[in-house]
Amino acid sequence: MAGEFELIESITSDLTVGDDVMLSVGDDAAVLRFSGDTVVTTDMLIENVHFKRQWSSASAVGRKAVAVNVSDVEAMGARPSAVVVALAFPKDLDQAWVAEFEDGVKEECATAGVSLVGGDLSSASVISICVTAIGDLEGRPPVTRFGAKVGEVVAVTGRLGWSAAGLTVLQRGFGSPKDMVAEHLTPSVPYGQGIVANDGGATAMLDVSDGLLADLGHLAERSRVGIDVDPSSVEIPDGVARVSAATGRDPLGFVLAGGEDHALVATFRNEAVVPKGWRVIGRVTDSGSVTVDGEPWEGSAGWDHFA
Amino acid sequence: MAGEFELIESITSDLTVGDDVMLSVGDDAAVLRFSGDTVVTTDMLIENVHFKRQWSSASAVGRKAVAVNVSDVEAMGARPSAVVVALAFPKDLDQAWVAEFEDGVKEECATAGVSLVGGDLSSASVISICVTAIGDLEGRPPVTRFGAKVGEVVAVTGRLGWSAAGLTVLQRGFGSPKDMVAEHLTPSVPYGQGIVANDGGATAMLDVSDGLLADLGHLAERSRVGIDVDPSSVEIPDGVARVSAATGRDPLGFVLAGGEDHALVATFRNEAVVPKGWRVIGRVTDSGSVTVDGEPWEGSAGWDHFA
Repeated sequence: MAGEFELIESITSDLTVGDDVMLSVGDDAAVLRFSGDTVVTTDMLIENVHFKRQWSSASAVGRKAVAVNVSDVEAMGARPSAVVVALAFPKDLDQAWVAEFEDGVKEECATAGVSLVGGDLSSASVISICVTAIGDLEGRPPVTRFGAKVGEVVAVTGRLGWSAAGLTVLQRGFGSPKDMVAEHLTPSVPYGQGIVANDGGATAMLDVSDGLLADLGHLAERSRVGIDVDPSSVEIPDGVARVSAATGRDPLGFVLAGGEDHALVATFRNEAVVPKGWRVIGRVTDSGSVTVDGEPWEGSAGWDHFA
Repeated sequence: MAGEFELIESITSDLTVGDDVMLSVGDDAAVLRFSGDTVVTTDMLIENVHFKRQWSSASAVGRKAVAVNVSDVEAMGARPSAVVVALAFPKDLDQAWVAEFEDGVKEECATAGVSLVGGDLSSASVISICVTAIGDLEGRPPVTRFGAKVGEVVAVTGRLGWSAAGLTVLQRGFGSPKDMVAEHLTPSVPYGQGIVANDGGATAMLDVSDGLLADLGHLAERSRVGIDVDPSSVEIPDGVARVSAATGRDPLGFVLAGGEDHALVATFRNEAVVPKGWRVIGRVTDSGSVTVDGEPWEGSAGWDHFA
């Protein structure tokens, strides 16, 4: 197996970086030039906890690791700028896996418009990945979780329910609907919409990772408001309908409570200012809790690694 | 065991943050306000690769995880500002270990003058830690690895050889000299000296992690120069001398080739501008390689995780 320095050389030999990158890999740290405040977020992906090698290609894992982190930068209303990627893996892992993983990282970086500017390689008994994403607010204020006001509207952009439908299929040993499965393996983040929402006056925003209702619960709690979701405004994707029919489960459950969606949900002052590409799904209330058509949701409420 | 959200609440309930932190934990990402370019670096620590629980207290592991990352920000000549800390651990790990780890993280953050502004908790079969450190150049240029010029002097601040001496002792089942062992478990980074070197006109700099000669090799390669170290200028700490005597090894080997020191080494135009607290140990040459008193070093040359 190649040594650490050779591996780093092969990974970094073809990197391209954005105009805001003053110094990329090869030094003690990278240097970025921002015009506004700096946004930073980190997330780990552990083999057999966050992904399984029998389900995910190395490329899909690399893409997902970048996507889920950049999604959090979008959720602050910032321009995603760069990622650093730490990877630890067993010494006997096929080197092709590492190369394919890094290709996936670079592919998603290109899609997201971010630069890979650093990382770390190490050995470990299971594959462990840690990505930190950095963004530039470019003079904008951050869109936090605590700015929602009673009477405002709740709107969403991106896909809901696809990832949970895909996971359900995989857990039963199947591989289709392929679009649902692909969405679970690599979420399609609505890149660029964080800034669109910020410039459109979003008062609060987050990305959907624990499930729409669970995440709206976080927003409601931080903003000290309630939120009512109108189920008739929530679209049921074809694939979700098919998985629901095949498994006898409520399609709304996938859309409202399925985790790992990485859609963006935000509150806006009124319908008129909701940006194109966002759909209104509810309203901010004074109830202090999250409801669906005025009632508490009785289904599953997202998931917790330690539950 | 407490759930993820309760654990995060207990970790983050007593956080204090610096004036440059606009938004800390509790949102999708943290927001930092810098007056200059942003420096970012990441490193993973894996149980039984980078630390052993029978050698290190949880607090020492937490302190080390912060220290080795902030050290890289210092090495760019920047002011360290903040860290995000991702931790994955087995579900059956004693919760006191996690609490003690986080106390160590906070203790080192206080020592380094950085704010803990975010993180991630997950499960994994072995303890896996990933820290990303962020710094603010505050209008200064970064001090890279590629600015050294022939004729300049090489100077160092911080401790050399202590960590390797401590590791040697631990590997033989002993616990003293205690100061050497403690240095291996938690390196004492010369916090603040990165800016001192930058303001003093350092032309190139890095932190010593692979071993002084190996790291000078990286600097020489990037700067396309050679470096000659004067062994008579390198001090042999008492503890290193004691470990050398007890193990029959060359004390210079610990100081010149021992890894994980996290001293800072930099090049300066001449002796007159070398800041107080730094000692000159060599000179930049046109030889294209690193030598000790004009000769290649025949001892061990640092270490490589994948060797």
